[in-house]
Amino acid sequence: MGRKIIIVGGVAGGATAAARLRRLSEEDQIIMIERGEYISFANCGLPYYIGEVITDREALLVQTVEGMSNKFNLDIRNLSEAIEVNREKKTIKIKNLNTGEVYEESYDKLILSPGAKPIVPPFEGIAEAEHLFTLRTVPDTDQIKRWVDEQHPKEAVVIGGGFIGLEMAENLNHRGIKVTIVELGNQVMSPVDYEMAALINQELKANDVDLIFEDGVKAFQDKGKTIQLQSGRKLNSDLTIMSIGVQPDSELAQNANLSLGSRGGILVNEQLQTEDESIYAIGDAIEVKDYIQQTPAMIPLAWPANRQGRLVADHINGRSISYEGTLGTSVAQVFDLTVAATGNNEKLLKSLNKNYEAIHVHPASNASYYPGGSPVSLKLLFDSDTGAILGAQGVGYKGVEKRIDVIATAIKGKLNVRDLADLELAYAPPYSSAKDPVNMAGYVAANVLDSEMNIIHYHHVSDIVDKGELLIDVREPRERDGGMIDGSINIPLGELRARLNELPDDRHIYVHCQVGLRGYLASTILKNNGYQTSNLSGGYKTYQAATQKS
Amino acid sequence: MGRKIIIVGGVAGGATAAARLRRLSEEDQIIMIERGEYISFANCGLPYYIGEVITDREALLVQTVEGMSNKFNLDIRNLSEAIEVNREKKTIKIKNLNTGEVYEESYDKLILSPGAKPIVPPFEGIAEAEHLFTLRTVPDTDQIKRWVDEQHPKEAVVIGGGFIGLEMAENLNHRGIKVTIVELGNQVMSPVDYEMAALINQELKANDVDLIFEDGVKAFQDKGKTIQLQSGRKLNSDLTIMSIGVQPDSELAQNANLSLGSRGGILVNEQLQTEDESIYAIGDAIEVKDYIQQTPAMIPLAWPANRQGRLVADHINGRSISYEGTLGTSVAQVFDLTVAATGNNEKLLKSLNKNYEAIHVHPASNASYYPGGSPVSLKLLFDSDTGAILGAQGVGYKGVEKRIDVIATAIKGKLNVRDLADLELAYAPPYSSAKDPVNMAGYVAANVLDSEMNIIHYHHVSDIVDKGELLIDVREPRERDGGMIDGSINIPLGELRARLNELPDDRHIYVHCQVGLRGYLASTILKNNGYQTSNLSGGYKTYQAATQKS
Ligand SMILES: Cc1cc2nc3c(=O)[nH]c(=O)nc-3n(C[C@H](O)[C@H](O)[C@H](O)COP(=O)(O)OP(=O)(O)OC[C@H]3O[C@@H](n4cnc5c(N)ncnc54)[C@H](O)[C@@H]3O)c2cc1C
Ligand SMILES: Cc1cc2nc3c(=O)[nH]c(=O)nc-3n(C[C@H](O)[C@H](O)[C@H](O)COP(=O)(O)OP(=O)(O)OC[C@H]3O[C@@H](n4cnc5c(N)ncnc54)[C@H](O)[C@@H]3O)c2cc1C
Ligand SMILES: CC(C)(COP(=O)(O)OP(=O)(O)OC[C@H]1O[C@@H](n2cnc3c(N)ncnc32)[C@H](O)[C@@H]1OP(=O)(O)O)[C@@H](O)C(=O)NCCC(=O)NCCS
Ligand SMILES: CC(C)(COP(=O)(O)OP(=O)(O)OC[C@H]1O[C@@H](n2cnc3c(N)ncnc32)[C@H](O)[C@@H]1OP(=O)(O)O)[C@@H](O)C(=O)NCCC(=O)NCCS
Repeated sequence: MGRKIIIVGGVAGGATAAARLRRLSEEDQIIMIERGEYISFANCGLPYYIGEVITDREALLVQTVEGMSNKFNLDIRNLSEAIEVNREKKTIKIKNLNTGEVYEESYDKLILSPGAKPIVPPFEGIAEAEHLFTLRTVPDTDQIKRWVDEQHPKEAVVIGGGFIGLEMAENLNHRGIKVTIVELGNQVMSPVDYEMAALINQELKANDVDLIFEDGVKAFQDKGKTIQLQSGRKLNSDLTIMSIGVQPDSELAQNANLSLGSRGGILVNEQLQTEDESIYAIGDAIEVKDYIQQTPAMIPLAWPANRQGRLVADHINGRSISYEGTLGTSVAQVFDLTVAATGNNEKLLKSLNKNYEAIHVHPASNASYYPGGSPVSLKLLFDSDTGAILGAQGVGYKGVEKRIDVIATAIKGKLNVRDLADLELAYAPPYSSAKDPVNMAGYVAANVLDSEMNIIHYHHVSDIVDKGELLIDVREPRERDGGMIDGSINIPLGELRARLNELPDDRHIYVHCQVGLRGYLASTILKNNGYQTSNLSGGYKTYQAATQKS
Repeated sequence: MGRKIIIVGGVAGGATAAARLRRLSEEDQIIMIERGEYISFANCGLPYYIGEVITDREALLVQTVEGMSNKFNLDIRNLSEAIEVNREKKTIKIKNLNTGEVYEESYDKLILSPGAKPIVPPFEGIAEAEHLFTLRTVPDTDQIKRWVDEQHPKEAVVIGGGFIGLEMAENLNHRGIKVTIVELGNQVMSPVDYEMAALINQELKANDVDLIFEDGVKAFQDKGKTIQLQSGRKLNSDLTIMSIGVQPDSELAQNANLSLGSRGGILVNEQLQTEDESIYAIGDAIEVKDYIQQTPAMIPLAWPANRQGRLVADHINGRSISYEGTLGTSVAQVFDLTVAATGNNEKLLKSLNKNYEAIHVHPASNASYYPGGSPVSLKLLFDSDTGAILGAQGVGYKGVEKRIDVIATAIKGKLNVRDLADLELAYAPPYSSAKDPVNMAGYVAANVLDSEMNIIHYHHVSDIVDKGELLIDVREPRERDGGMIDGSINIPLGELRARLNELPDDRHIYVHCQVGLRGYLASTILKNNGYQTSNLSGGYKTYQAATQKS
């Protein structure tokens, strides 16, 4: 006879676990408990249904209760909430949300995949706010879409500039609504660093989305029609989306005396078991280890939930598994722009006091002579001693997520930045260059590691200029018309060798160009002529993005 | 004082070596000898200029003689041919093709990057053929384009279905010319295997390109206006492109008594030195080692030429280098389709008698509920004992090269197929699925490796049917209307559990579906009920492509 396995939560982690459990055994009794009406739905597609990019609501329902029950011979109970776990008796109390009935089921194994819920702080006036929404479920989606369809809001305020906030901003914009994003921090998309996020600001503004940084909600007034910010500023809103982040839905676990991490995530071992070895927990609800640093982390994304769902099914069926942590590879579309990241960002590395360095490049997504290419801005973070890859970020219009996926793979392969130069990536003019952007990032990082090139960063520039240091812009004069660093002097790269006599040989020479390449060429000429030099990483492009007024 | 370094060949390998040599030393005298008028041009863009996808001829000239001389302080001599190397004296004879003058230069280091030349067999009548072209250089391109612009050919014949042949077919088609491809083998695009190449045939035919397989040129008649094939068939041609492959341009090396491999490639060590340690050779002209098997290989692609160019510059400047072989990652656009490959294909593995297995999957390029996705057909080859990844091939309309790049990176990271399941790749609905196609390929391969699923391949089907074995099609009845395997019986997946009693328990049960997934689900149900089963890899889709009439 088979075992009795109960799964709490029927979407990303839960449904995947159920499917794999059945594939591994026809005998086990598998019960999937889901609070909502829908199971196995496309959380990640919800914003696009509101924006009418996805027009077929059915398409969001990857599996139906009936279809999945049948296909996998599961006992699926939707509109049913798990309300209490009794670890001693190995039973769980379930409330039928249709009838209110509460009943008990025993289990041999219990899998918790309850996900996370949007954070909603108790702002003044929030209870009265009438058109304030969060987005997590299909009913949330239906509500927001109905509001848009029926009330024709003109102005929307999105609170929080994370990926759900940005996706909602874009999709509301598609519906003809003027959107303002309010963000407490100084940037959108926290997985990437400030200067990379700055490239997104331009895209948002170009699409008529307003951005307010370093300001937060103080109160909702007039039934939510007026949002008062901490700065005193007031915003009109016909529709407000609260998307400042999520917190693990870990109450059930907590009430069962299972330990939680400091941010509320259920604690599990590498086999994804809680303290109680009969109880597994996966997905957004758990605390994971950061793959690179092995420090605690909360990474609420679909890949980890799906992966963990399969792994626990394997473990329950006697296969040995080990979940080594989450890298946090992520991507978001922001209008025509793509933003992607993997591994650690600079903010984290700095806070952990790590010995790291970062480089920036802006190579073309494909051969520059072939139409349709555009720059891929890449930031690569690595250990300054060993060259181990710590993380990468990309922003651009084409081929961005490809490069991040390649670097994510390189990290799992324990390659270092030098090895990136050796990656043999597919090249034909429509797709890449003979030296792929990832190769290029590897070359540049290796040059820094080997001290073939010294670099400074955008945030060092003002100091250098203030101190009256020598900063040479090696671009062509006409490029300076489009913007330049005050205090820099211009010697185009092509003239540098002939004008070396103009340079003092007792001073460090800082150079920069548009993206970093010519600055590097200049720095090699200077270095090989005996000068001390440094080149501005990412050139004027990174500097300009990071220092523009928002 | 610096050394004197001479480079023969001024395009991919040669120009890259020159640039890096200069970055590493301001002192060395660097002379670059190029037979043609142009250096550093975009070989790979040439077909697209003929097709007017690239409209600006200047864009093909990545660097000009003047610009590059200036930027890198090089002595560049175009229209100059290296005609003899004297290894004893360390001199090279150079012929000025403008004046006919021959002179000698001494060298400390010599780098040969002479590339390859199109193979043109001595077919009957070829000398008289008037509009027969090969494509390697800018002048070749100008000639072909002029012929198209001025003669308005109606029918073109492309001889050879490799990537240059296919790119020419597409670009001539863009110019309104009816194209027929004649290919001696039984498939186009030899880097991929037969059943994968079959997917390309459909795209070619849909774009009105005719395909003739297993037939070759016998003679050119009527000044090349009639091409007689070996089969006796005759083709009209107003324009003929000969693109049956290239051979190393290794005469200079051979005359200098440097050893060549069996296919004419210059032999080098891991430091890319020929037998003469002062003479390096790189690019299309050399024999490399296959990265995976470490067997001799000829892989005339731009990435290796560029990479090797940089490496020799490093070695000449005292850095230690080691070129470990070429993986042969490649990609081509064929109309709207992308075809990409990395590592070994099945043909090679079979010829080497390796213990390998292959799996096929056809997952969607991005979340199926998000518009714009389409299937990525992936073939993954791996060692049947260890699970080591041996190669991969992809065909599809979107996201193909990304998956091949990821697998190429995984190979360099020495990951095995199981590790592919653990790759944490960027997911949002426009880009991928929570289980990326690469994860999926990894899952499927691991299932085969672990005997969770037995598979058969498309080429086993006719035998199975002929022997009267039991082959169950688990698709829905209406799917069979679109095509089915004669001899299969239909039990839709959803009915399988209820109809197990219809199945004999003493026979092996073969199952198939459309792409392999439902066949797998069926096979797990059967297996877990005690049956012996095998699933058709890649399902009806792979079978149908491979068995269609061309
Ligand atoms: C709008 C939106 C867009 C997103 N976009 C992306 C994206 O592009 N890429 C990406 O990687 N990730 C994205 N995510 C995140 C991704 O959807 C989650 O990481 C993933 O769904 C987590 O899986 P899970 O199984 O942990 O939780 P969920 O998928 O949320 O499933 C948990 C389920 O458990 C149920 N439940 C909770 N408690 C109980 C209980 N006591 N009893 C019964 N049922 C219970 C809940 O009702 C819920 O349905 C997005 C999320 C949202 C909301
Ligand atoms: C039409 C076309 C499309 C292609 N598309 C792709 C693609 O999409 N992707 C890809 O990876 N690769 C592609 N390639 C292949 C790629 O261009 C080559 O692999 C690469 O250029 C090889 O570099 P190389 O330095 O060895 O040779 P080349 O780039 O060919 O340079 C060799 C140069 O040496 C010169 N030379 C030879 N002998 C002498 C001598 N004795 N004296 C002076 N000069 C000499 C030649 O004139 C030539 O200019 C394509 C090639 C062609 C022709
Ligand atoms: C054009 C050509 C001469 C360029 O050679 P190159 O200078 O080595 O290559 P790139 O211009 O791409 O620059 C690469 C260098 O810039 C550096 N670099 C690139 N971006 C940088 C940035 N943002 N900041 C700092 N350095 C940067 C790299 O580290 C590398 O330097 P390194 O080799 O010393 O480490 C050569 O590639 C060529 O002739 N190409 C055309 C022919 C060809 O390849 N044909 C086949 C394909 S169509
Ligand atoms: C739909 C859902 C139930 C599917 O779970 P699943 O069955 O594990 O996943 P898939 O349908 O992708 O199938 C994967 C299985 O098919 C196998 N497979 C896939 N393609 C195959 C092929 N061509 N041939 C053979 N097997 C194949 C894989 O090996 C895997 O099986 P395994 O885990 O036993 O190795 C679950 O993913 C889900 O609910 N998703 C929606 C919710 C969600 O993820 N939300 C967040 C993102 S929007």
